[in-house]
Amino acid sequence: MGPLILTLACPDRPGITARVTGFLFERGCNILDAQQFNDRAGNGGGDRFFMRVVFDPDGSTREGLRADFATLASEFGMDWTMVREDRPRRTIIMVSKFDHCLVDLLYRCRTGELPIDIVAIVSNHPREAAIRVEIGDIPFHHIPVTPDTKPAAEAQFRTLAAETDAELVVLARYMQVFSDEQSAHFAGRCINIHHSFLPGFKGARPYHQAHARGVKIIGATAHFVTADLDEGPIIHQDVERITHADSPEDLVRKGRDIERRVLAEAVRLFAQERVLMNGNRTVVFRG
Amino acid sequence: MGPLILTLACPDRPGITARVTGFLFERGCNILDAQQFNDRAGNGGGDRFFMRVVFDPDGSTREGLRADFATLASEFGMDWTMVREDRPRRTIIMVSKFDHCLVDLLYRCRTGELPIDIVAIVSNHPREAAIRVEIGDIPFHHIPVTPDTKPAAEAQFRTLAAETDAELVVLARYMQVFSDEQSAHFAGRCINIHHSFLPGFKGARPYHQAHARGVKIIGATAHFVTADLDEGPIIHQDVERITHADSPEDLVRKGRDIERRVLAEAVRLFAQERVLMNGNRTVVFRG
Amino acid sequence: MGPLILTLACPDRPGITARVTGFLFERGCNILDAQQFNDRAGNGGGDRFFMRVVFDPDGSTREGLRADFATLASEFGMDWTMVREDRPRRTIIMVSKFDHCLVDLLYRCRTGELPIDIVAIVSNHPREAAIRVEIGDIPFHHIPVTPDTKPAAEAQFRTLAAETDAELVVLARYMQVFSDEQSAHFAGRCINIHHSFLPGFKGARPYHQAHARGVKIIGATAHFVTADLDEGPIIHQDVERITHADSPEDLVRKGRDIERRVLAEAVRLFAQERVLMNGNRTVVFRG
Amino acid sequence: MGPLILTLACPDRPGITARVTGFLFERGCNILDAQQFNDRAGNGGGDRFFMRVVFDPDGSTREGLRADFATLASEFGMDWTMVREDRPRRTIIMVSKFDHCLVDLLYRCRTGELPIDIVAIVSNHPREAAIRVEIGDIPFHHIPVTPDTKPAAEAQFRTLAAETDAELVVLARYMQVFSDEQSAHFAGRCINIHHSFLPGFKGARPYHQAHARGVKIIGATAHFVTADLDEGPIIHQDVERITHADSPEDLVRKGRDIERRVLAEAVRLFAQERVLMNGNRTVVFRG
Repeated sequence: MGPLILTLACPDRPGITARVTGFLFERGCNILDAQQFNDRAGNGGGDRFFMRVVFDPDGSTREGLRADFATLASEFGMDWTMVREDRPRRTIIMVSKFDHCLVDLLYRCRTGELPIDIVAIVSNHPREAAIRVEIGDIPFHHIPVTPDTKPAAEAQFRTLAAETDAELVVLARYMQVFSDEQSAHFAGRCINIHHSFLPGFKGARPYHQAHARGVKIIGATAHFVTADLDEGPIIHQDVERITHADSPEDLVRKGRDIERRVLAEAVRLFAQERVLMNGNRTVVFRG
Repeated sequence: MGPLILTLACPDRPGITARVTGFLFERGCNILDAQQFNDRAGNGGGDRFFMRVVFDPDGSTREGLRADFATLASEFGMDWTMVREDRPRRTIIMVSKFDHCLVDLLYRCRTGELPIDIVAIVSNHPREAAIRVEIGDIPFHHIPVTPDTKPAAEAQFRTLAAETDAELVVLARYMQVFSDEQSAHFAGRCINIHHSFLPGFKGARPYHQAHARGVKIIGATAHFVTADLDEGPIIHQDVERITHADSPEDLVRKGRDIERRVLAEAVRLFAQERVLMNGNRTVVFRG
Repeated sequence: MGPLILTLACPDRPGITARVTGFLFERGCNILDAQQFNDRAGNGGGDRFFMRVVFDPDGSTREGLRADFATLASEFGMDWTMVREDRPRRTIIMVSKFDHCLVDLLYRCRTGELPIDIVAIVSNHPREAAIRVEIGDIPFHHIPVTPDTKPAAEAQFRTLAAETDAELVVLARYMQVFSDEQSAHFAGRCINIHHSFLPGFKGARPYHQAHARGVKIIGATAHFVTADLDEGPIIHQDVERITHADSPEDLVRKGRDIERRVLAEAVRLFAQERVLMNGNRTVVFRG
Repeated sequence: MGPLILTLACPDRPGITARVTGFLFERGCNILDAQQFNDRAGNGGGDRFFMRVVFDPDGSTREGLRADFATLASEFGMDWTMVREDRPRRTIIMVSKFDHCLVDLLYRCRTGELPIDIVAIVSNHPREAAIRVEIGDIPFHHIPVTPDTKPAAEAQFRTLAAETDAELVVLARYMQVFSDEQSAHFAGRCINIHHSFLPGFKGARPYHQAHARGVKIIGATAHFVTADLDEGPIIHQDVERITHADSPEDLVRKGRDIERRVLAEAVRLFAQERVLMNGNRTVVFRG
């Protein structure tokens, strides 16, 4: 078996690192990478500890390790996961009519740089309107959404996500807003790309807002979806300089580049178990 | 006489460039640099034309050229200026208790990279509290401000600005808000540095706001002061990446670097007549 | 007829701008954008003047304007072009086995952001080995190259370029080095992407060189092809931060993103007549 | 006693993290931050392990912990240090005639963001020529260097470094090249700022080289000094965009900003024990 990734978050107290690394050493596991963070700011509470460990399990099985680790985890009150590093995350991509992010994700999957397995592409528009590229044998689902059909459409999508065992939903410029219920259902496993440098320019037509305000830099933001639109925990952001000579259309063009690389990076970070939730913020353990 | 800088803004129509460059050529002036911009977006009106020309006046005097150009300018409805390139702009710097931007501006003046002449440093705090560096023979003025004395303090500052013939007022982390009257009085010649990437995190303690929101990039914004605080036309912005491990104090430290370089660049651009107002936005002709 | 783009370069002397803009005004043309640059450094000679003007020809024809302008151009010793803005440049893309740049260029063509018309894709490898995406009805040409067949292969490519009226050749990670003759033949109309921040790490396997040297930032460079490999005039460069934790393979992955956006930007700049040669350097008039 | 910082490097083998963190836990120490890196590339040998741990020693003394840890360190063949986090590193700054980096380091010391104690400023020029700012009570030493006196001058400097217990020597645009002997003497504790993005433009007048080559981005590099000039292990680098319109003098001006922030960051990283040597490269544990 290849390497495993352990992630955990718990109230801070002395000895966590020693216990976790000792646990692994006793079982012959070899640590390949380890990162930790102690949030002393304490989001309205005590300190909180976060850790990500990649290790070679040697002869141990994931099941055995998980069973053993559960005891330790319980003692420290940990939220934790232990998953195989080499297993691509089952992912659904949702799009509307802009397909630049989808195209980019598909390409990166093909080159092997994104450890995801795209189990479905979903759009609120028919395939011809939604995507203009080859998607091979990836199933496409047209789930139209109107104010009247929204509850049913969301239920249909939840069913799809369940049937495909999706671990991640990527809103790749999907232009429909999730209901509170839907947001809660996919909390912590649904990533959206917003085409502005949040918290600036929430809502619709952010590039036009940015042009009207006369900013000198634009950006894009990948964040977890929450019921509060454009307010979810931020995973990754990037920016580009613009000038007075850039029209709103230029911003849209430049923005496409930022959007696709920010979203792809956020998906990569998530799929490699590098993103841990910390209240309304994230801890991101980069390589 | 050294080179002159002509800047102009007017409603767009055919032939402006030909007329302006022809005007200069007929008088033996040699264009050293010229930039123009046609704002076709039309901020709620017709197209607007902007131009900056640096030229060697040959034997002509600035007074003669100005008198002649006035006729042409009138014909096109131009807002315009024609000034000597080598004349440092008379500048007042206002500070409160953070002096990193002041120190930086002083140093850049000394190296000759900022074409300004600092005619006064003003603080609402006593000198010992406001600045901790040598300021040589630059006059320091302590103008305290309380809610009760604010009108009188602002009047005192206007008098100082008039007496020193100040062309530019730089709020180098000056923590007092100008009244509407004061903002209007210094409209277009007062630059503020806001320690966030506007329009995100307006108001007080922006680094703490940024930390609380969990953004992954912070920035600073230099803008003209208007009555609407943190809403003036933006001149320059820059950013830096941060991570979950950065505390609010780290953001303050990293922010100091961004603030000082953004403010210094805005002052340089202004002093070189590279910044033209375009409604609530700016046209910035870089080199 | 839509806008025309005039570009010119000539020895500097007073009055060029006035004459050029006067020429256009007299013929009823309306200048939409104009940029100029006077290289006072004088690459081993006198000053040199560069200009790019976009204008609406009103009722004039391109042929008429060109005929008239030739006289003025001759008087000033100008190298010049006058072309339609809306005409896509006929372009050949050459690849070997990495297709990330090709895929990116194809996508940008489809979105309309790159004003090029891809008239052929050429590879030294068979199609199956060279590209793994749909190329629609773009002709693919397999031109194998061995030391023995190189002259013939290059002649075959020159014939193809002539038959397709190619105005631009893009080496999109094409791994064969042009002969001196071939480089000279395509001088000024062949763009290569080198996967390093030149002049660092010339030659083969630059990411491995960068890793071995322990640099903290990597980059990519788009440049005109000359007989001196990796020494042609630079059009565009960009960079990304890396850390000690990045393996050579990580650099390759991160590099792909830099390469494709640097090459695409260089192609856009060229196709919009924004790149003028200045000895072994370039003048790039951005929007 | 405040927190201690432990850094270590050794051949990799299973259990190092568990042993180190267990060692600390057994003694009641609380880990505040820990980072590790396993260099699997193996610079011409086996894997190498690097670690930095910040911990609260609780009641233990540094001396006691050091004595105990020596046994463990010996077992694993570790290069290691254990120092107080709150102790400023004793630092000598060397300058010639450019003082922008010195000024910046002095300012950052004053704001408390650089944990160094400047014990001497040394120049090969007299004080009036070398620095134009207040240095308070920091001793200034003029050590002239000519080809003939170089060995004596270097010996004089070594004596000064010994007498001041200097832990760090910063070459803040010091224009003399260390002899091989001097470089070896200060190996691993002498940081230089080179005003180019190494490995491009080694040697003299790099901004003029960069201008002549026509690059579109310039940079600066902070590196450890070795006998091979401009080839020492790189600690930090940064860059800025430039255009064809930037003269060599513009590059010098823009470069000053890059140089001072790159050098200050390298000094901060070193003083916080974040930089570990890895052959001719560095491991940099950022916060």
